[in-house]
Amino acid sequence: MIDNSHLELMNVAPEGVAVYQTVPYVPGFRVDAGHILQAIEQLEHCALALSAGGMDVIGQAGTPFSFAHDDGLAWARKMQARLEEVAQKPVTMMGLSIIDALKSCGYESVAVASTYYSDDLCARYTRFLDDAGFRVLTLKNWIHQGLLPDRRLLEQPRYWYPNSLAYQSARAVAEESPEADCILLTGGAVHTMDIIAALEADLQKPVITSDSAFFWSLLTKLGVKERLDGWGELLSRLCPQG
Amino acid sequence: MIDNSHLELMNVAPEGVAVYQTVPYVPGFRVDAGHILQAIEQLEHCALALSAGGMDVIGQAGTPFSFAHDDGLAWARKMQARLEEVAQKPVTMMGLSIIDALKSCGYESVAVASTYYSDDLCARYTRFLDDAGFRVLTLKNWIHQGLLPDRRLLEQPRYWYPNSLAYQSARAVAEESPEADCILLTGGAVHTMDIIAALEADLQKPVITSDSAFFWSLLTKLGVKERLDGWGELLSRLCPQG
Repeated sequence: MIDNSHLELMNVAPEGVAVYQTVPYVPGFRVDAGHILQAIEQLEHCALALSAGGMDVIGQAGTPFSFAHDDGLAWARKMQARLEEVAQKPVTMMGLSIIDALKSCGYESVAVASTYYSDDLCARYTRFLDDAGFRVLTLKNWIHQGLLPDRRLLEQPRYWYPNSLAYQSARAVAEESPEADCILLTGGAVHTMDIIAALEADLQKPVITSDSAFFWSLLTKLGVKERLDGWGELLSRLCPQG
Repeated sequence: MIDNSHLELMNVAPEGVAVYQTVPYVPGFRVDAGHILQAIEQLEHCALALSAGGMDVIGQAGTPFSFAHDDGLAWARKMQARLEEVAQKPVTMMGLSIIDALKSCGYESVAVASTYYSDDLCARYTRFLDDAGFRVLTLKNWIHQGLLPDRRLLEQPRYWYPNSLAYQSARAVAEESPEADCILLTGGAVHTMDIIAALEADLQKPVITSDSAFFWSLLTKLGVKERLDGWGELLSRLCPQG
């Protein structure tokens, strides 16, 4: 498995922030709970490598790593603490950063575009958000929404998906649940940073994506307080002057 | 261990080239033959991870990986072929890319600034270049050159070194061996890309660094033929019109 978040973060972060990457290797990896649990076994090794390499903050990219385990939220919190203990550095797991971002903004209800997640991952994600105290008004993947014609398209490993699909799916869940405090657009293999501002303008509502929550958490832990414009409301909150 | 080459390459490569990274982890890593041989044991795993992640070309950063083994050049060539077999993708080892770059330019003699390498690595590097058919007129590290006062400074793990040291050491070996066809400036932990053009102007002689040879090889294997200016003569050769 490989992830594009480092490229997205280098685009978003102010000058002076350098991003390094290491990846677990699971033969025949696919985005499902079983393969993710195999990759999780290598997370300590990855955290040690990055810590020894002099990183100030460590991020684990891939939202479902936080809810692939049957114990969901409680397990993820333990895992993040364990990685911090091993690395002796602050660690952010992408899935947990979504919880933290929603809480920090005071949002209580969400409509979720779960993009390429399988039905099983959708069920786990719903439980994860529910356990964290949020009302999940809608949670739909591209198959549920009719945006992809064939379930098998989700089962093939892909490194990225078109932003037009992500945009349409966020709009559809927003229209389905107009009372939601916030739209969640999930999936690290969707390059969402470029469409958040457009979605927030069109929906007149905050949009948080896996990447934006992840970057907000990492940059907060790094102590970055520069003004970051154009990436949505959440990242504009890093600057204390708003 | 960690490496900065991915950041340097993203600066140098034309738009459209995306760079991903994975790293081996050796507890207590230092730049010496023993630790490097331990890291080498993880190279196949790294190559598999990058290949499975959809990379088109794979690069192994870190020059001494190509000459840390007692069998030097012959071993490195076997290792590169082995990684290509495992990954089923073109693979460039940084040390071998220097040999290829020198040969491609037709240079026969070199003066080498070996920066932070230990005496043992300096001896191995000299043999490596010699085995490849080059005359090594000078090869000096920062201790030999009096640029660092204390050998112990080379023994502490460092992620980067100041470019002023790299610039001075390249000038010093050039002055010591004015008949050299080319100046080699080595060491991936030195961010050399920004000083190559200045050095070539000041020395009136081609300068090849570990990073420039590595990027030349990777971009060649990717089929990049765009005009890249400002990074020295070697990278300007990617463009067939010169």
